[in-house]
Amino acid sequence: MIYPKELEELINFFMKLPSVGAKSAERLALAVMKFSKEDAENFSKSIQKLKKTLKDCIICGHLTSTDICHICSNSYRNHNVICIVEDYKSIFRFEKIGKYNGVYHVLNGLISPIDGINPDDINISSLINRCNNIESENIELIIALKPTLEGEATTMYITKILKDKKIKISRLSYGIPMGAEIDYLDALTLERALADRKEVL
Amino acid sequence: MIYPKELEELINFFMKLPSVGAKSAERLALAVMKFSKEDAENFSKSIQKLKKTLKDCIICGHLTSTDICHICSNSYRNHNVICIVEDYKSIFRFEKIGKYNGVYHVLNGLISPIDGINPDDINISSLINRCNNIESENIELIIALKPTLEGEATTMYITKILKDKKIKISRLSYGIPMGAEIDYLDALTLERALADRKEVL
Repeated sequence: MIYPKELEELINFFMKLPSVGAKSAERLALAVMKFSKEDAENFSKSIQKLKKTLKDCIICGHLTSTDICHICSNSYRNHNVICIVEDYKSIFRFEKIGKYNGVYHVLNGLISPIDGINPDDINISSLINRCNNIESENIELIIALKPTLEGEATTMYITKILKDKKIKISRLSYGIPMGAEIDYLDALTLERALADRKEVL
Repeated sequence: MIYPKELEELINFFMKLPSVGAKSAERLALAVMKFSKEDAENFSKSIQKLKKTLKDCIICGHLTSTDICHICSNSYRNHNVICIVEDYKSIFRFEKIGKYNGVYHVLNGLISPIDGINPDDINISSLINRCNNIESENIELIIALKPTLEGEATTMYITKILKDKKIKISRLSYGIPMGAEIDYLDALTLERALADRKEVL
């Protein structure tokens, strides 16, 4: 027995978190040990509250404590523009820049035959239902998935399945990230940036 | 409002932990979201239990749920050899190698005049009391502090204050760490390894 039982227990929970190894878990648990009694109590409560309160929005799948999230229930947003994202985290990123006024749709994963993830395993059918239920004729879907094999496959699938509907489908532009050095860019990004070049004048 | 309130609360607690920034905290909180209900409940409970149950051993200052820790209360260990460490973590490291059969004394810090940490601020007086109370004439103190300015200052202070007592005081050896490349060693370590060289034959 190297650790006191109670400490070992908490270390084991920290190790269940992503990229927390044995040593980090020990460091985190010892830091909790240094929390004030009040902080530790509130930290503990907030974990339970999170699991008890938050669920998926019934429209877009975003995290929410109510049935419909604060984005879907905001009448100032444009509900005809739907940004399709892989997970909640992407929504947080978009909301942080504060330049997007549409709504979202969380797929909760990407199609990946290798990992056995098929279109039925992610929230695509709810997306199609959603598109069918919008009365406007000016729907735009912005696909904001990462440019990997899985992201591309998911993009292609969504595009194919919706191609007969009168829906504008776009995706984020690929190219050189701001501030990057051309010397250090990978070949694929450079190739893409060249192919998708934009006229300046 | 970018995050749901409950999520933001937990993110803020994770950010109180050492080397957890905004992005890692978000990742950790979302991972907790994916815990099973049971795991989340036990994780939460284990934080409170830790703070409620663990305290410092009244003899050596190590973490324990009883008044006297499992090391100090172990009669198979040699209570005449006391290894002086900076914090609990060092004890975990020593216990992991499983080669040390003595007991410990946790200073809970190092003397550092720059940071305003004086001998009175760390557990040195309890160490002296402890040495005075041991009846044996064969006490050995092994100082296992890190070789920095603070570690050296603390080592010197302890040595000075105990020099009139019949106590053997040693410290860990300094030198080249196992597996290191001589090319990449810093000058100070190499200098030390040279000065402290050991006869082979």
